[in-house]
Amino acid sequence: MKADRAIGARRWIIPDGYIPPASSGTLESHESVCVLNTSDRDAHLRFTIYFEDREPLENIPYVVPARRTKHIRTSSLRGDGGRSIPAGVPYAIEGESDIPVVVQYSRMDSTQAENALMSVVAYPVREGEGQ
Amino acid sequence: MKADRAIGARRWIIPDGYIPPASSGTLESHESVCVLNTSDRDAHLRFTIYFEDREPLENIPYVVPARRTKHIRTSSLRGDGGRSIPAGVPYAIEGESDIPVVVQYSRMDSTQAENALMSVVAYPVREGEGQ
Amino acid sequence: MKADRAIGARRWIIPDGYIPPASSGTLESHESVCVLNTSDRDAHLRFTIYFEDREPLENIPYVVPARRTKHIRTSSLRGDGGRSIPAGVPYAIEGESDIPVVVQYSRMDSTQAENALMSVVAYPVREGEGQ
Amino acid sequence: MKADRAIGARRWIIPDGYIPPASSGTLESHESVCVLNTSDRDAHLRFTIYFEDREPLENIPYVVPARRTKHIRTSSLRGDGGRSIPAGVPYAIEGESDIPVVVQYSRMDSTQAENALMSVVAYPVREGEGQ
Repeated sequence: MKADRAIGARRWIIPDGYIPPASSGTLESHESVCVLNTSDRDAHLRFTIYFEDREPLENIPYVVPARRTKHIRTSSLRGDGGRSIPAGVPYAIEGESDIPVVVQYSRMDSTQAENALMSVVAYPVREGEGQ
Repeated sequence: MKADRAIGARRWIIPDGYIPPASSGTLESHESVCVLNTSDRDAHLRFTIYFEDREPLENIPYVVPARRTKHIRTSSLRGDGGRSIPAGVPYAIEGESDIPVVVQYSRMDSTQAENALMSVVAYPVREGEGQ
Repeated sequence: MKADRAIGARRWIIPDGYIPPASSGTLESHESVCVLNTSDRDAHLRFTIYFEDREPLENIPYVVPARRTKHIRTSSLRGDGGRSIPAGVPYAIEGESDIPVVVQYSRMDSTQAENALMSVVAYPVREGEGQ
Repeated sequence: MKADRAIGARRWIIPDGYIPPASSGTLESHESVCVLNTSDRDAHLRFTIYFEDREPLENIPYVVPARRTKHIRTSSLRGDGGRSIPAGVPYAIEGESDIPVVVQYSRMDSTQAENALMSVVAYPVREGEGQ
């Protein structure tokens, strides 16, 4: 077994978040924030959700265990007081982790009868940026 | 509340812009330029639109408030004299901001009966590049 | 009018090239290599096409004029002796330019009745890399 | 013929892997890991597959010949004891190569009657990162 080192970045940005409010067919519209933790330590993440017209939803916690990936449904995230991300509203995601991880964002939209997909590797914030 | 610092880049490039001229079904074909401003200051952007066969459309202003995201429909942008981006024409987008922001571009095409999606994180121009 | 400087990179890579051999509906399956030249000089590009099982197709020329974008259909590219990229064959694209440009790759696939889209910003080769 | 130098990175990450378990129409749901080797030496890759709830599948070998691309179906990869990646399970991909290569990941999903596409350039791990 090779050495397991944390790789990636500690802070990631996804500007285009949107939970499609409708689904049709056999697949449900959804978004996934896919996180890979290659290290042998658990990664403790906190998400901040930014909106167009209201204050951010902060400090949403999530743990990605050592040497595991988690494909996190955005609709499952819960902030203070159990607040979740509303469907049908444009928003943006910031993820912060105590150790480096790698983050990809994908959306499946099945509003109309067939599904559509989009995906990006999130924007990695480099050390020293924004300080 | 954590410290709010501007992160990202001051200049972003999206080479593949195209407003699909047709829509069908319940969703309208459109593009969004999604901007996240994590700082506690407003970001003042200017867009330049490049074409294949004519002079660029310059100095289109847009404000993204502090700690907010804006998912900007490209069809809503207005340059000098109220000029807008024509549909059905290949073009490219350059965005400049007075403070760092993060930019993602997404297109929904519903020309044919079901929708299709594509998305990219825009190309961030690094400080010192192009000078 | 602002100063026009070349931005981006001189070498770009797109590993996943594929011209879908079939189309249906009103839109034709195709790929576009979208290039933005922000400078006030013309950009002279050369494309190399790599395959899975044969020698590369080299030295395909293309000019992107100053302050213009070109959305280049891959099926329109012509190498030595008029050779073009065959449809239905996996391949990869390398683009080199005499001045920095920015490159995005998009594919529309309308093999089945509705269209599907994918897009990536190409991989920018940094100065000094690969030398 | 120009000089052939290895470009890209030796380590690449794709957090969102998923083999759709169903297909319909004329196209089969699948993923491709598209690798370009621009050098005049063969590239020897090893893939590691990370899961949400079990130990990684390690040391899956693959060779990409000199000056060739390979668009590798993930369902064709075989690890120790002939183990393959199960369909319908979220996972993540790490690819390591003895020389620099460039990697793009694409998924075609034809679960519902028409196909959907998504694609990303994989996250390139920079030299010195994760050490």
